[in-house]
Order: sequence, then C-alpha cells, then structure tokens
Amino acid sequence: MILILKENYDKKQLDNLSDWLKAQDIEIHMCEGVHTTIMGLIGDTSSLDIDMLLTLDIVESAKRIQEPYKNANRKFHPQDTVVQIGDVKIGGGNFATIAGPCSVESEEQLCTIAEQVKAAGAKLLRGGAFKPRTSPYAFQGLRETGIELLLKAKEKTGLPIVTEIMDISHLPLFEEVDVIQVGARNMQNFELLKELGKTRKPILLKRGLSSTLQELLMSAEYIMAGGNENVILCERGIRTFETETRNTLDLSAIPMLHQMSHLPVIIDPSHATGISKLVKPMSTAAAAAGADGLIIEVHNDPKHALCDGAQSLAPEQFADVQKAVDAVLPFACR
Amino acid sequence: MILILKENYDKKQLDNLSDWLKAQDIEIHMCEGVHTTIMGLIGDTSSLDIDMLLTLDIVESAKRIQEPYKNANRKFHPQDTVVQIGDVKIGGGNFATIAGPCSVESEEQLCTIAEQVKAAGAKLLRGGAFKPRTSPYAFQGLRETGIELLLKAKEKTGLPIVTEIMDISHLPLFEEVDVIQVGARNMQNFELLKELGKTRKPILLKRGLSSTLQELLMSAEYIMAGGNENVILCERGIRTFETETRNTLDLSAIPMLHQMSHLPVIIDPSHATGISKLVKPMSTAAAAAGADGLIIEVHNDPKHALCDGAQSLAPEQFADVQKAVDAVLPFACR
Amino acid sequence: MILILKENYDKKQLDNLSDWLKAQDIEIHMCEGVHTTIMGLIGDTSSLDIDMLLTLDIVESAKRIQEPYKNANRKFHPQDTVVQIGDVKIGGGNFATIAGPCSVESEEQLCTIAEQVKAAGAKLLRGGAFKPRTSPYAFQGLRETGIELLLKAKEKTGLPIVTEIMDISHLPLFEEVDVIQVGARNMQNFELLKELGKTRKPILLKRGLSSTLQELLMSAEYIMAGGNENVILCERGIRTFETETRNTLDLSAIPMLHQMSHLPVIIDPSHATGISKLVKPMSTAAAAAGADGLIIEVHNDPKHALCDGAQSLAPEQFADVQKAVDAVLPFACR
Amino acid sequence: MILILKENYDKKQLDNLSDWLKAQDIEIHMCEGVHTTIMGLIGDTSSLDIDMLLTLDIVESAKRIQEPYKNANRKFHPQDTVVQIGDVKIGGGNFATIAGPCSVESEEQLCTIAEQVKAAGAKLLRGGAFKPRTSPYAFQGLRETGIELLLKAKEKTGLPIVTEIMDISHLPLFEEVDVIQVGARNMQNFELLKELGKTRKPILLKRGLSSTLQELLMSAEYIMAGGNENVILCERGIRTFETETRNTLDLSAIPMLHQMSHLPVIIDPSHATGISKLVKPMSTAAAAAGADGLIIEVHNDPKHALCDGAQSLAPEQFADVQKAVDAVLPFACR
Repeated sequence: MILILKENYDKKQLDNLSDWLKAQDIEIHMCEGVHTTIMGLIGDTSSLDIDMLLTLDIVESAKRIQEPYKNANRKFHPQDTVVQIGDVKIGGGNFATIAGPCSVESEEQLCTIAEQVKAAGAKLLRGGAFKPRTSPYAFQGLRETGIELLLKAKEKTGLPIVTEIMDISHLPLFEEVDVIQVGARNMQNFELLKELGKTRKPILLKRGLSSTLQELLMSAEYIMAGGNENVILCERGIRTFETETRNTLDLSAIPMLHQMSHLPVIIDPSHATGISKLVKPMSTAAAAAGADGLIIEVHNDPKHALCDGAQSLAPEQFADVQKAVDAVLPFACR
Repeated sequence: MILILKENYDKKQLDNLSDWLKAQDIEIHMCEGVHTTIMGLIGDTSSLDIDMLLTLDIVESAKRIQEPYKNANRKFHPQDTVVQIGDVKIGGGNFATIAGPCSVESEEQLCTIAEQVKAAGAKLLRGGAFKPRTSPYAFQGLRETGIELLLKAKEKTGLPIVTEIMDISHLPLFEEVDVIQVGARNMQNFELLKELGKTRKPILLKRGLSSTLQELLMSAEYIMAGGNENVILCERGIRTFETETRNTLDLSAIPMLHQMSHLPVIIDPSHATGISKLVKPMSTAAAAAGADGLIIEVHNDPKHALCDGAQSLAPEQFADVQKAVDAVLPFACR
Repeated sequence: MILILKENYDKKQLDNLSDWLKAQDIEIHMCEGVHTTIMGLIGDTSSLDIDMLLTLDIVESAKRIQEPYKNANRKFHPQDTVVQIGDVKIGGGNFATIAGPCSVESEEQLCTIAEQVKAAGAKLLRGGAFKPRTSPYAFQGLRETGIELLLKAKEKTGLPIVTEIMDISHLPLFEEVDVIQVGARNMQNFELLKELGKTRKPILLKRGLSSTLQELLMSAEYIMAGGNENVILCERGIRTFETETRNTLDLSAIPMLHQMSHLPVIIDPSHATGISKLVKPMSTAAAAAGADGLIIEVHNDPKHALCDGAQSLAPEQFADVQKAVDAVLPFACR
Repeated sequence: MILILKENYDKKQLDNLSDWLKAQDIEIHMCEGVHTTIMGLIGDTSSLDIDMLLTLDIVESAKRIQEPYKNANRKFHPQDTVVQIGDVKIGGGNFATIAGPCSVESEEQLCTIAEQVKAAGAKLLRGGAFKPRTSPYAFQGLRETGIELLLKAKEKTGLPIVTEIMDISHLPLFEEVDVIQVGARNMQNFELLKELGKTRKPILLKRGLSSTLQELLMSAEYIMAGGNENVILCERGIRTFETETRNTLDLSAIPMLHQMSHLPVIIDPSHATGISKLVKPMSTAAAAAGADGLIIEVHNDPKHALCDGAQSLAPEQFADVQKAVDAVLPFACR
C-alpha cells in the first residue's frame, strides 16, 4: 500500500502512525520529494482499512498495490479451482449447465422439469424454495417443503440440487442440498458468509446488483477464510440505467474474474436479462467468452402456468440453447 | 394496475388470466381499441407480481397505478408518524440528532463521547458493536461487549442508544437497545426484516446503496406488515459515479419520502459524504429540506485516535454543526 | 399512449387536453373505472412529449405503448438494413471488422497498421484524427492532417476509412471519408446529428456512456429523419460502478437492438474494456451473440510506441482475434 | 503523479519512459522496494494522459497526486471568483436567482413572466430558445426568434438574460445574450467549449448527467484555458437508479466544488427533481449548503398552458420559494 502524506504533515503523528504500522509487522519505505512524501507499506496489508487510513490528518491519499483478497487470488493459487459436486465438475475446463424452475411449486412440476433438463444435457437441478421477494405480500416460496421436493427430484433423476439460502437459521435444512446458493441481495450478508465458510459445501455466490468484482471476491474471501474453498462465482447482471433488459449482463466479468481469481465463473442469463429470447444469444456468448457454466431458468408448461417468469424457457427451448452452447464450447476463449 | 395486451392475443389465455384474477378478488375493466386492448385491474393488487404478469404470452406491458406499499403509504395514513424513544420523539415536527462513534472501542471512549454529544444537544447515542466490513480480515466490532458498553453509557448519560443488528441470531442481545439499526447492506435481508416486524422496537432502516425510495418503503413494509409501526427511514447516500464523495447524499429523498410516506426521515451525512468538512453544510441543508433528524459520527480525540473515520467530527465540531442546524430549523420546509 | 387521470380531475382541463390532442389527429378512448379514468391515445403519438403531459394537473401518470422511434423501428421495417461501404457490407448477415490505431500519428505508422490489419482480415480502417479528450492540455489529434493521412492509407490499401467528427464545422473535411463516426460524448449533440442526416454517408453512431438503447435509437432517428438511412449502431461500453474494466460492455445490446431495430449493430471491445487481454474473449462473445461487426484498436509496435492504449492489440494479436471470431461466426445466434 | 512498476519490468522500457518524461520537464524520483518500484513524477503532469501511461507494459498502476485542472483549481486561486453580469454579481458571497420559462413561446408569455419573477426577486431571466430534445419530432424551440424575444424582455425589464447554446455556428446569435448556458448533454462538447473560451461572456456550465465533479471542472478548464475566466458551475441532477425524481440532485456538490474550485456554484432544482413541489425544499437546502445561486423554471398560467413542465412553478409559488431562500441565506454554510 502507498500513502501520500500532506505537504506539511505533523512529524509526531507520522511517528504514531509508523509505530502502529510496525506493531502490525508492516515494513515502511519512505520516499521524500520536494513537495511530496510517499510511504510505501510492505507486508500483509490486507487487514489495513484504507478508509481509516485516509482519515488521518497527515494522509493526503492512499492506494492499494496488492489486492485485499488472498484465498481467492489467482496470484497465490495459479491453477484453476475445480469444484466437484458428486460426479459433476465445474471449473478448470469443466463446463456444466444448471437448469430448473424459478420456484419449486409441486412434485409433479419439479420432477417433470428435472427429467426434461437432464435429457437436454443439464448437469444440476436448480429450484427456489426460499424466495427473496421485494414485497412482503408476494409468494415467499414453499420453504421447507420446497427443499423436500428438490430432494425427491434429486432421488428420481440423480441430478445434484442447487437452491438458495436466505438466513443462517435455515442452514440445518440444507444438509442434503448439494450446492448452496447465496443470492445477489445477500452477497454482503457477512454473518451468513462466515457461517457458510464453516461448512464444506459448494457455495454458488451471486454478484450483488451493484457490486464490483473486487467486492464479489471479498465476499468469496469471507467464505474461504473459514476454510471452505468450494466457491463458484456467478455473474447475474448488474443494475444500470438500461430499462429494456432487467439488468445488464456483464460478460467481461468472465475473463476479468478468471484473471483475478482461480475460482470457477458461471453466468445466469435468465435473471440478468429477464427476457427469454435473450437467453440463447447470451448463453452462447458466455460460453465463447470462457464461462465455466450457466444457470438457466426452465418452466414446464407455458400454456397452463400462470406465473412463469418472462425469463423462463420451455424445456424444448432449453434443449436448443444447450445445443447452441455445445457447438460454441470447442472455440471458447480460455 | 393496467395490463396492455398484445395485438393478437389468445382468447383462451385471456380467460385463464381473468379467472385467476377474479379468484383473487380483482375486478377487471376491459377497454378495447382498434389495435390495443387495455385491462384495468381494480382491487388489492399489491400481492400481484408485475414481473410475473409481464411473462404471460398475451401481455405486452403492465403498469402499476397504486403503490405496492400500504402500511407505509401516506395515502392511507395522512398524519405523520411520531416514533417515541423514551422521552425523545422523532417525526411530526420533532427533530432529533443521534450522535456517537463509528465503532464502540472502550468504556472510556464511549462515555466521554456520550457526555460530550449530550452536552452539545444530541438526543440519542449511536455506536457500532457489530460492524459490517467488506474484508473478513478487518476489525468486526466488539460485538456482545460493544452492546454492554453502550448500555453502560446509556446508564451514565440517560441517552437512549442506537446500534446495528447484522443477524437474526443476535436479536436476544438487543433487548435493552432502544433503536435497532438495519444497515444499508441488510435493507433487503427480508428474513431479518420479518423478524424485526415481530418486535415493537423502533427500527432505523437505512436505504440500500443503490436502492430506490420505493424499495426502501417496501422494506419498511416488511417490518410494518408484522405489526411494528415504529420505523424511521434513513437516507445515507447512494452509489453514483462521483468519486470525490464516498456516496451521493440524496436530499430530495426527504420531501419525496414525506410525500410518499408518513414515516419519519433522517439523514446520515457522515457516511453519505465520507468527509468531515461536508457534514456541516449537508446537515444544515437536510434540516432546511425538512428532515426529522440526523445521525452523525463523532470521535473523541483526533490527535490520539488512529482509526477515526475521515467522516467523523470532533465533539466541538459536532457542537458547531448542531448549532448551525438549530439556527436553520425554524425555517425548515415542511 | 395511455394517460391515467387523477381521481378528481378538472373536467374543463380534460376538455382542453382533449381538444389539443384531437387537433393533432390523436384519437381518444376513455375508459372510466370507479376510482380510475384511463385515456387511450391512438394515432401518431411520437411527437407527444410524455414529460410535458405528465406535467398537467389532471394527469397522474402516462405510459407509451408505441416506441417513439419510427424510421429505426424494426416493426415498420422488418428486414435487416445492410449498409454498403464500397464493396463492404455490414448487416443482414454480413460481418465486418474495422481495425486501426487509436490516433493517427504518421503516414508510416498508419500505412503499416493498415496493411497488417488488411492482411489479417479487417475490412475497414479506423483511426482518430479529431480526438475528444477530457483535458484541454492533452493531445487533441492531428486533425486535418490526420484525415489526409487516412486518405493516403486508403489509397495504398484500398480499405475504406472510418473516423470521428467532433463538430459540424469540420464536415467539409469529411467529404472523402467513407464512414463518419459520432462518438459517445456526441450521441446527443442533436445539431450535429441533424446535419449528418442531410448527408448520405454511412454514420457509425456510438452509444453514450450512460445512455439507454432507446436513447441511442432516438439519436439514430435524428439522422434518419433527415433522410440518411445508413446508420450503424455501436455499443462501446457503458458507465457502471465496476472499476476493473474501463466501462462495462453490454453484449445483450446486440440481440436487444436487433429486436428493436433493423439497423446493424457492431461492438467496440477495445474502448469498452480498456484492457487488451479482454479484446479476444469479448470479440468472440460478440460474434456468438450475433453482432454485425467489430471495431478494434490495433497499434504497430508495442516496444517503441509510448502512447499506445492499454486497450490496443499488436497486429499479430489482432490476427489471432480475427481468427477466433471467424471460428465462432458460423455458430452465431441470429 | 505516481507510477507503480511491474515486478520484473524491462529496464530498457524504463529508460525509454524516463527519457520521454524528462523531455517534458518532468522530474523523476525512484523509490525501490523489495518487490515494488515506485516512480514519483514531479512537475507539470497535467498534460500526461494517465490512461496512456497505464498502457505501458512496465506500469502496474498509476495515481495522480495533483488535480489535472489548473485554472479552475482553488489551490492556485484561493479567492472566490465573482462573475459580474451587468449589476448582478454571482459568487464570493453574492447570491442570485435566475428564473424564467422552460421554453420561450411568445413575447407576451415571456414579458409577463419576466416582470413577475423580477418583482419576486429574481436577478436574471432564463428561457430556452434552442431546445435539446431527445426526439427529432418534438418542438425544438423558437431558435433565432426565441433569442429576439429574450432581448425584448431584457429591454423591458432590465433583467440580464441566460439562454442555452447548442452549436458553435449559432454563436453570432448570442452576441447580446448576457450569460451563455452550456447544457448537460454538451458538457463534453469540447469544440464548443474551446470556442466559448475565446469569448469573454459569462458561461453557465451544467454538469453532465453522469459526469463527475472532476469532469465538470475539466470542462470548465477547456473554457478557462482559452482565457475566459467567467465560468459559473451548475449542478442540475445526476442520473441514478431512483425513478421518483427525474434525476438526483447532488447538493454535496456545493461544498465539494467550493473546496476544489474558486468558481461560483449554482443549483437547478427544477430539472434535477422534475417535480414542482420539490423545488422549494431543494432551493432552501441549496441555500443552506452555501450555493451561490439558483436557476428555477417558472411558467405563467398553469390553467391555460398545456405544456408547462411538471417542474415549473407558477409566479406566486416562485415568490414563495424566493422568500424561503432569503430566510435561510443568513445562516448559509460558507
């Protein structure tokens, strides 16, 4: 980290700061110019709070040279992490599609979709049991029952299951869940992340609606600092001023995250765009850009279902998307 | 709510939709033009999910006429809500300043500040015990001990205390806390909001970093739907492209929220700007625009403290801010 | 367009409004509910200013049903527009790469790059003569001389040239330029757009840094309303909170714009990401998502050049990108 | 400026860079740590393009210490600039309100409003002659005629006039205009700014819809670099995700710009909020925060006018706002 000192800084305050830094095993290099004094801080600066340092009277500005994330950092872990879920691998050249309905509604609905997406090439089944909803008056998901239904569908089809957790207190219900999803709104629910760090379950961590990639990696770091290395990063669209699409899918996050981190990166084109017609081009583009997987919403029957999202595909459309993705995968950029 | 149908919509799907809406006590007004058919939905449409309706094959677009929040809506509750905390009132013409340190560090630190801010005119004491931090390696607050220290400071000074909760499981620790703060990152932690709705404690609900005012009110609605009407809304800066200030303080939120809702609105100029010099002009401006209160960070000794935020004021600076605010209050726009 | 009236609207004002609308050949359908009155406006509503209507005392809210752009609208022009530049076609299944240096520096530099990118498969040559720079103290481009050098490079290589215009008064200098580029900062320079509408030159119109797709199409509409149908839309990254990349490339703009409009859509991965390593994955992804072309920065000699942008590729890297794009093109989603 | 070099940088490239920097009179301080080498660049670094330097193979990252604006910088010009327009002063403790209609429509409309706002305390008259409109089909203003009408109103009332320029070619029409306004969409129309820098007219420069304060000052710098020091900065709301208000008024821009620059800062609450009810609280708040003036839209007759903006006040409402502002001004923070 570099600190630039104010022109007429108080020497005594500098001594205080230097002592405090040294007490934390930080080595200090001073570089004094005519008007400007620069302090280079060498050592493990990840626990230093740059905002707090900026507050000091003698500090003009500060700049991190090293990234504040360690466990998630590609620099200290050059090989791709491969997350193993039963027989399925994600990352390090292994591509997997996760598919299923937005909300779990019934055993019949879920099992039908599960079999259809499996036949089309999906490797994991997704489905919402706990649903984060903006309105307290909207359907909040089948909750416990939803998880039971997911486990039945897993039993029938053999597909490992992915479902979202919304609170630490629900963790016991997730014991047989294969991949625990942390939603965009909980990306900075730090107490939840710490608790998930104590498990060894694969965690699918979604990027917050207006989070930076570094913030996403800091949240992964919370999980990894607890000893759980099984983190899958997921880009699901960020908030922008565009209104034609629900959010803006940031596909440059794929190569950028691969450069910053060794963790696998998957893409959620359904939530990102909110428009089923865009799922195919965005899925193919994600595969071309080097994504390690996709998570796609599929509903069973568009003619009868009232509440399928605008972003959901019918099973035959999903099969078409999977085929298009498979065609592009051999030419993916990695 | 208004639904605009696609030009050649399927009559059978319209029947399905109409039946489903009627089953939910929604009255339907059809308005057929040459090219366009409009459905007016009358009744309690707050539980209708507009995103889900948009998904239907026959629906071209949809528009809410009524706000999806009821309990927080000024239309159904024209009088200002006054939140009572001991002898202190916030809202309905009652202005109160909340002041105190960013983090609780020690009994001495806290009690010193508490006495100083009380003398300067603060009505409540704030202090962080549980600290949401982007990095898992940064100081996470004194936690339980922090709350004990706050209670000691309350005992000494008589100031009611305000402190942030980060997880449902910590709720028992907050029994004697006067006002429970929900931080910006937890504004959409819906399980936490529901749980706080079961208490009758005043809740200081901060706006999320890129949340709209309607989303803020929907989160207030989660608390109020549980029966807890004691919600104080807090604008604390939103994320924009500006980098000179930490966030952008949206002072138009004051009159706008007052128009939309009957709940009190307070302003946090410290976190919003991140710059102590801006606290005074922004506090005065907030008072002029009709805010019901302020929450301001104050530190004890800038010469010794290493980690006071750039946004914190020394006690004498706080006294100066309070004086400037008091001078403007008689001319506030309400 | 739909207007929703306030509950107790003034009948006389409604009459005024109705008369005014009818005078503009707008047909009115009234739809009166118990609490809500809806006005459906049928006819050419593109010249109605929704913001102005919202201002009327009697209007609660308003919603456009028809898009405000006509010439650029796919609905009224279902076939893809193909823009012809010499022998090169862009759009309607014709893909073309535009390549060249950020700034034109010298004849040698430009001609060397031009020959190299031509050999690698580029169909057009780009190069900045007039440079929009944030600082008045930064290099503003070779201007007139830059255009002369571009014309020399065109003569030598046969590649048509693309270069940016910054002011109407420079238009005479662009007589022999093949494609006139309008930069992101000038996307809403309406006087310039009108003037370009009077020419019949192909216009490469870049999306503004925080513009919506509809705003981009409205700017295209300014050009097309003057009779110039040769507009190529270009997504070049939008401003978001992400800092790792210079901007965020919105690849969903490709299928979305293709749905909204018949105009060709090209992608600028160099400016969007600002990072040369990301140009290849983003170019391949753009091709997979159905883009009609790319515009890529290429510099000549990375070892000697001081001021090549972080976003520029060396010619051999460009050749590698073009090859990767060509491999994916047969599988593109259209 | 500080450059941080990559760990194993090429010495020859460093020599190239050093030579190039020295040739531009930049002094270099090297500061070599074990892993990190820092270059401190001393001298006039304002013409160095940080983006270009970042592109060099040997540069890991770069940070400006000095602001890239000089003429607009408070550091080199500690006294407030006072812009004089006839008898009216803006800045340095002089507060002035500019008021008038959105668009100039007729002599009667304009002169009526002009007299009314003058009576209520406005010091300058505003009115749009050239109107930047998103749609080519919307009313584009009375243009030349509009300016003639403004000059008539000036003659009648003695109020100096403020009106917007949209293109360099219109400059001759602005000879008798007192203050030339540059709209938000033209804030980075650099050719226009350069041309305005050659005049000595007061320029009212509006902040772009998603521009930073530094970008605003860089645009002021374009004007000032030409020798025109009469620049008035105007905050008129920035684009955020909030939809209740048209834009988000950034009042922290007032103290922040006053700290960064010596130029006067005025606020446009009408365009920023788009809601007439918010004009009063935001005007009062702006005055409290230390603004040097306001620019407010006023229309003549809400009962007859069809197209007055939702953001416009009737003259009696304007008088009420001016009174509220005057009451707060003695307590303004400066």
